[in-house]
Amino acid sequence: LPDAPVFNRLALIGVGLIGSSVARIAQARGDIAGEVVANARTEDTLARVRELGIAHRTEIDPRAAVAGADCVMLCAPVGAYAALAEAIGPHLAAGCIVTDVGSTKQSVIRDVAPHIPAGVHFIPAHPVAGTEYSGPDSGFTTLFEGRYTLITPLPDADTDAVARVTTLWQRCGAMVECMDPAHHDRSMAIVSHLPHLLAFTICGTADDLEDESRRDVLRYAASGFRDFTRIAASDPVMWRDVFLNNREALLEMLARFTEDAQAMARAVRWGDAAYIEDKVERGRKIRRSLLELNQA
Amino acid sequence: LPDAPVFNRLALIGVGLIGSSVARIAQARGDIAGEVVANARTEDTLARVRELGIAHRTEIDPRAAVAGADCVMLCAPVGAYAALAEAIGPHLAAGCIVTDVGSTKQSVIRDVAPHIPAGVHFIPAHPVAGTEYSGPDSGFTTLFEGRYTLITPLPDADTDAVARVTTLWQRCGAMVECMDPAHHDRSMAIVSHLPHLLAFTICGTADDLEDESRRDVLRYAASGFRDFTRIAASDPVMWRDVFLNNREALLEMLARFTEDAQAMARAVRWGDAAYIEDKVERGRKIRRSLLELNQA
Repeated sequence: LPDAPVFNRLALIGVGLIGSSVARIAQARGDIAGEVVANARTEDTLARVRELGIAHRTEIDPRAAVAGADCVMLCAPVGAYAALAEAIGPHLAAGCIVTDVGSTKQSVIRDVAPHIPAGVHFIPAHPVAGTEYSGPDSGFTTLFEGRYTLITPLPDADTDAVARVTTLWQRCGAMVECMDPAHHDRSMAIVSHLPHLLAFTICGTADDLEDESRRDVLRYAASGFRDFTRIAASDPVMWRDVFLNNREALLEMLARFTEDAQAMARAVRWGDAAYIEDKVERGRKIRRSLLELNQA
Repeated sequence: LPDAPVFNRLALIGVGLIGSSVARIAQARGDIAGEVVANARTEDTLARVRELGIAHRTEIDPRAAVAGADCVMLCAPVGAYAALAEAIGPHLAAGCIVTDVGSTKQSVIRDVAPHIPAGVHFIPAHPVAGTEYSGPDSGFTTLFEGRYTLITPLPDADTDAVARVTTLWQRCGAMVECMDPAHHDRSMAIVSHLPHLLAFTICGTADDLEDESRRDVLRYAASGFRDFTRIAASDPVMWRDVFLNNREALLEMLARFTEDAQAMARAVRWGDAAYIEDKVERGRKIRRSLLELNQA
């Protein structure tokens, strides 16, 4: 027999890659939520959720979706959080836990916390997992396995609420860690946001080339370019919101990267073979560490 | 029965990823070379080639390796080509075809052509395929399937020699195209050399962070960073040589990329949501084109 569900009613606000993966896991296991309610911006998405059979109930109005829920998980692009939190705030049940899956945490706290009524717990979280696909069809039950979920509780967070969010993610297969939201945003800037910014940028640089060279980019992509395009295929609205909501940390990492790229350019121009070889060696070392940690 | 071999004796100067893949294909098919002779810089590598059984004969001296060969394929890092060509030049048989697999073509022509004696054909080529692995163990028979091999013949190239190199690569599974060496180098700068430079650079930027953030890079790499590390795991000497031998085109593409990255930074700083969304959309479009062309 499975353990008792962590929550009686889980309301998912957004059913894209992350939300629909949580919904699938909740359906596949008995121990996450007794009932899953799905909310999305469009009826089309909710119709698809019903076809997929991954929620017990769908609601187009987020206020109706959260009514009576003891856990509300925001799974929309982070730019939508302020308006969503404002809308659902007055409809949250006493004792409810509001959590989220956004890739930025300081902005989420800034946008959501003011709308959380007394007696409701707000526990920001971020499952560090993903693919380049989006929408309710893209989710799958093993998405979080062996990946981290980072929880960034506020200083006065209810320890039982943190423990329940932790259990939810552990049952989704994730390893859970708590950290400071500023630390989270800085780490994500280098490990996720900057790589995506570089990938989007090189696609644009390639797309601006004259016709013949552009054709070549598509034909000969196997030689390196295509590794950048996988992550560049990610959801535009989600990424626009991430960049705008982790501005300072992202710009700082981009500035560091640009300095390093200019130093590499200088080494190429002046034929500094030892410098180049050393930089390439460091790339290999990091790759090896990733393979050892099973994160590659 | 297989067709007659394209060559009687194929000498591979270097048996890394590309050379050992060609050797394996030649062993698996009867129609590439009657005999394969492998040369490498170290006895260890040649001992491994013998263990793998992928060549008929091994020679530590490149001059002995090319003696009597009707095809010599340079498969070493491009920075070694000038010295290799100078060494083997006097030992090339009349009518022999010298070809190569280097990722830069103008530098290869500059370094090799002066050492090719009269009566020997020099047909520069570049199979646009690869993995992050290197050495004689890394090769495999399907490496070139569905990938392009680019041939950059000199203006006075012997048409029969071009045809034979073409047949060799077609039998290796590749699609063959001829192009101008300057065009080749420019296309590879954006499609391959710049992505590698960016990947090596971001690994260095991450490696320079304070300890805690560096640890985070390894733990949370699934969120984007690891896509960059695969290509950053490539062979340091090979890539050092590529960068130094395609300097002008690489620096130009890096300059264009840097302008575009700065424009993106400006959009992030000033909250230009439409600009960011447009750039991300272009990344998706390129990814879709790659999937349609089966190059993703």
